[in-house]
Order: sequence, then C-alpha cells, then structure tokens
Amino acid sequence: MIPKDHPRYESLMMREKLVKGCRMGITVLQGLIAHGRGEMFDYVLGERSHDFALRAEKVAVALMLLSKRPVISVNGNTAVLVPKEISELSRLLNAPLEVNVFHFSKERVDKIRSYLKRFGAEVLANCDAELKGLSHARRIVDRRGIYVADTVLVPLEDGDRCEILKRHGKRVIAIDLNPLSRTAMKADVTIVDNIVRAVPNMVEFAKELKDSSREELKEIVNSYDNRETLRMALKAIRVNLTKIAESL
Amino acid sequence: MIPKDHPRYESLMMREKLVKGCRMGITVLQGLIAHGRGEMFDYVLGERSHDFALRAEKVAVALMLLSKRPVISVNGNTAVLVPKEISELSRLLNAPLEVNVFHFSKERVDKIRSYLKRFGAEVLANCDAELKGLSHARRIVDRRGIYVADTVLVPLEDGDRCEILKRHGKRVIAIDLNPLSRTAMKADVTIVDNIVRAVPNMVEFAKELKDSSREELKEIVNSYDNRETLRMALKAIRVNLTKIAESL
Repeated sequence: MIPKDHPRYESLMMREKLVKGCRMGITVLQGLIAHGRGEMFDYVLGERSHDFALRAEKVAVALMLLSKRPVISVNGNTAVLVPKEISELSRLLNAPLEVNVFHFSKERVDKIRSYLKRFGAEVLANCDAELKGLSHARRIVDRRGIYVADTVLVPLEDGDRCEILKRHGKRVIAIDLNPLSRTAMKADVTIVDNIVRAVPNMVEFAKELKDSSREELKEIVNSYDNRETLRMALKAIRVNLTKIAESL
Repeated sequence: MIPKDHPRYESLMMREKLVKGCRMGITVLQGLIAHGRGEMFDYVLGERSHDFALRAEKVAVALMLLSKRPVISVNGNTAVLVPKEISELSRLLNAPLEVNVFHFSKERVDKIRSYLKRFGAEVLANCDAELKGLSHARRIVDRRGIYVADTVLVPLEDGDRCEILKRHGKRVIAIDLNPLSRTAMKADVTIVDNIVRAVPNMVEFAKELKDSSREELKEIVNSYDNRETLRMALKAIRVNLTKIAESL
C-alpha cells in the first residue's frame, strides 16, 4: 500500500502496524496519540540513534546481564512495533517478557500474550500481584515477573510507574524519546531513541556482551552517568530546532 | 478509568476525548497522531500559556471584532476538545463556526455540525463553494462562511490551506503549537498555545474587549508583530530545554 520509495516509508509503516494492532485488539487509540508524540521527538532528534543512545543501549544490556531477575515489560505499542526483536532480546538476556498495559482488560492482555508467544519468547501475564502505591492498571503484575524483578526494562512507560518501580527497589531501564518525561528523569538508564532502532541495537549489544565477565560488564555500567545522557539529548533537540528555524 | 490524581490527568483526558470522538465518527485516526505531535510541542513549551501566546490571543480577538465577516473554522479535533468554549467564543465575537475537515465525507461533516449545534452556536456546513487553488478536501467551504470571510480563525490547520486563504485575501489567525509549521509562518496572527487553553483565554479577552471602540481595538492590532511571536516561541523552547538540562 505504501510505496517503498516514499521518503517517510519507515515512519508510515510504523503507523500502519499500530493501526493493524488496533484491529487486533492489541494497541489502543490512546497509544496512537502517544506514538504521535514520540514521532515528533524523533523528528526533532533527527530520526537516528545518537551516540548517547547507543551508549545507553550498551549499558542497559550490561545491566540486564548482571541482574539476577531481569524482566522486560511489554505494552501494546511495543508488542506490535518490535515483536520479533524484543523476543530475541528476551532470549539473549534470559529475561522474560511481561505484558503490562495502562488501558487494562484481561482480554487485551491475553491477546498480547498470544501474539508475542508466536515469536517464541517466554511471556508472563498472570496478573496475580500488585505494585503498592499505584492507582491505575499498570500496578497489576505477574508474581513471577516484575513483582520480584531486580531490573526492569520498560519501553514506552508511564512516569508514575517508573517512580513506583524505583520505590520498590528495582533498577529501571527506560526507552523514551522524550528526555523531559518523568520516566526519562527517574530511570537509572534512559535510552532516548526510537524503539524500532533501540531494540535491534540492543540485540547486537547482547550478542557482543553475553559472554563477557562480570568485571567487564560492571566496568561498562559503573562509568555511566544517566544525567549526562539526558543533557546530551536535550542539547541535540536544541541544536536541531535551531537548525530548522534557521533554514526557514 | 484514569485516576484523578494521575499527574498527567489533563493530558490523558484530552486523549480520552479524542478517542471518544473517533467512536462518534467526528475525529479520525490521523487526527490522533496529529494531536500527539502537538503534545510534544506543548511539553517542550512547559504546558502553559506564555506571554507571547496571551498577547497573540488578545490581538486575535481584537482583529475578529474589527472584521466585517469573521468566521471560525472547526475540524474534528477542535470539535471534541473545546465544543463549549468555541461556541461561546463564536457568540461573543459574532463569528459563525464553519465545519472544515481534511478527511472529508458529507456524513462526517454532518456529525460534527450536529454535535456543535448542541452547544448553541451557529454552525455553517453547506459545502457549496470551493476555494480555488487547493486540491484536497479543505477546499470545500460554505458560501456564507469562509468563502466570503475577511478573517478566519483556524485552529489546528494544514499548512497549504493557510497559504490559500492568504492568497484569497483573507486574514488568518492560527492556533498551532508548532512555531515551525507552515501555518505558523504564514498566518497573520499565530497563537502558539494548546487549544484547550487558547480558546478559554480568548473567551476572556472577548468579554473584556467586546465593548471597546474601534480605535482601541486598532491600537491593539497595529502594534503587533507576528514574527516576534514566533521568535519568542522558539526562544521559549530553547530556554526551557536549557533550563531542564542545567537542572540535571
């Protein structure tokens, strides 16, 4: 339907996937709006993986490999945008996927679980535990997953859940194109990159690092400063907006 | 469904309204993504009405009051986000609403008209005239409205229609959170503010100015420089990003 030579082919295909996800009952319309916001941040960042993002992606992988119980939280948008890639990452990191959505229904959660299982990952979705301190549906978790995890990768997250995960003593790795969001600010590692580039990048880093010693992994993690990542992302946006303004 | 204590309650409620609008056949999926893009700019502007926006809102009201045939163009997103407020503005300014959408069907236009009429405004939607020079559906207008208007308020507009309206000799007032858009650049008055704040602000200015003399109104309009507004909006974004970066 969309010609491959269209200058915005990648971007339009992402929208198509989300719209298809709506028909499948996996994504919700609110997710389209959230995606639109992300698109605009991606646009002002130049739609590429900056060095600060690649750095954060590598650190995130090292941190997951160092963790005892790492879990990857998956919402509707993530499930339709990168199902294959996130499943591969899950296997490489030995970290199960857990379905976790803001607009909750058991039916929707089951649909996402079934969809992800097709890509061969272990998918938790039992909804049998609760994160205290959170009033909306993101609190509903799996007893074997996020509930007992020490590190959680949260692509496309709500700010207040990130905060609660931190308060429950977990390390949080966020993928968020908005470096100003509460999630971005509160996470231990913030990947300011589009999920469709971030997850494949992380798959490559996981292949590279999976046989590294704990000392090597610790070295990668210890030298990392997340505030520096956020500063550099904000600077990149500022520089880009100035460039666009000047070209007008 | 969304708890009132959620820190992003207002923003999430706007999303809910747009989703409800989809079910009513008033908003379209493309409108949801467009809203998301606006959200991003609102975010980097600090989600408040800056002085340059308040100034533009006041000038816009004065210009509408000075006009012979002012019209307020309304699309799907505007209709579901601020139906009551835009109807009140319409009455105060003596400017009819006219339904004008990018994704056109007679059925959709009629649905928007019926919905708006509930809020007591005069709503034009006859689709019996065409703006020459425009190939998409935004060209279809009402013979009694935009077609003969001297000033048109266009919240959430496409860049090329703004251009055509200008070429037809009309004054254009735009509400657009993106100060870099073609609409923002081409309009006579650009209100860089969220429509849910801009329209209520304009209602207040309309109450304040509706009994002013033409001389007073002209004075407000004549001292206004729209390029200055755009410069200040870009500066506000840059300053905001810098401030946040430094606070990290």
